[in-house]
Amino acid sequence: MLTLHGDIRSGNCLKVKWMLDLLGRDYSWVEVDVVAGETRTPVFLALNPAGQVPTLVLEDGRALAQSNAILLHLAEGRPWIPAEAWERARMFEWLFWEQYSHEPYVAVARFQRTYLGWTADRIEPRLMERGHAALARMEAALAGDDWLAGGEGPTLADLALVAYTRVAGEGGFELETYPRVRHWIRRTEAAFRIR
Amino acid sequence: MLTLHGDIRSGNCLKVKWMLDLLGRDYSWVEVDVVAGETRTPVFLALNPAGQVPTLVLEDGRALAQSNAILLHLAEGRPWIPAEAWERARMFEWLFWEQYSHEPYVAVARFQRTYLGWTADRIEPRLMERGHAALARMEAALAGDDWLAGGEGPTLADLALVAYTRVAGEGGFELETYPRVRHWIRRTEAAFRIR
Repeated sequence: MLTLHGDIRSGNCLKVKWMLDLLGRDYSWVEVDVVAGETRTPVFLALNPAGQVPTLVLEDGRALAQSNAILLHLAEGRPWIPAEAWERARMFEWLFWEQYSHEPYVAVARFQRTYLGWTADRIEPRLMERGHAALARMEAALAGDDWLAGGEGPTLADLALVAYTRVAGEGGFELETYPRVRHWIRRTEAAFRIR
Repeated sequence: MLTLHGDIRSGNCLKVKWMLDLLGRDYSWVEVDVVAGETRTPVFLALNPAGQVPTLVLEDGRALAQSNAILLHLAEGRPWIPAEAWERARMFEWLFWEQYSHEPYVAVARFQRTYLGWTADRIEPRLMERGHAALARMEAALAGDDWLAGGEGPTLADLALVAYTRVAGEGGFELETYPRVRHWIRRTEAAFRIR
């Protein structure tokens, strides 16, 4: 059986959980409290030297980290990884962009507000500015397409990006001015059976 | 002919250039000065709304961004993307880790020192600490393996990570205490013909 080590409040962890649920895979969930330092214990670091969740452990003990790498591994051969080369390339572009230009702002502001209990005035303005830039970029990208990678159906790019976008409000990013993003969230939640 | 828009001092841009050179692809290089704001002009943003280099433009005008996504696209079907599922998964883990846990520290400290001309005392201690944590993780990973993804030959993970690791010293990260990383840099430079 697979074991997923994750923090249930983390979008990075939830996106892997949603994929396992969607695939009907048998797995156990081991809750890891990031704020309490549980990713920094010797036992956890032996599992994942990067000290990060999610970490997926296979039946034979091999461990895989990085949420988007885990999604790619689990979804191998499924339509959420487009067979067409350009659409696949676009999916990869969004997956890397998510971790570099979206998560460090949209997820981090939410982390500071909800995990650490910070008030809005303590959040670095640069974080909010870049988070809004990320949301604005998604809004623009969704003008001509239903799905981020530009194809006929949802891909891992949609799954990866919906994880923190759907809870962006918890980080102080109101989605009123991003109507296409709001509709895309509903589409993506339906496509991946996210409740 | 392909067109690569890049800043010649950027490891993210150079890794794509090295791959194009290795493949013997015909391409033109358009120099984009990041510090001078050339990724923020309306013309550039029309090409890549994320305002980032590298951006690869195909013959038909379609543009692809995110260095590791471009590498994956260019190296399709080549041995640097392992055919074996687990080794490929490990390669992806390192590619995402590079952009999340290595580049934002090792490359950013170098950017501040060499692009912006900051002195060592201006660099945030947290940046240096996390950069060293990234290098230490690589040093540990290379204890049992010649290549990061753990297989017999180099993968895109090695190419992606060597780009900023080989110039880590320019950011104040001396590599004396990372002997395996130093040897791996030489191996990787040879494998990808990086001069």
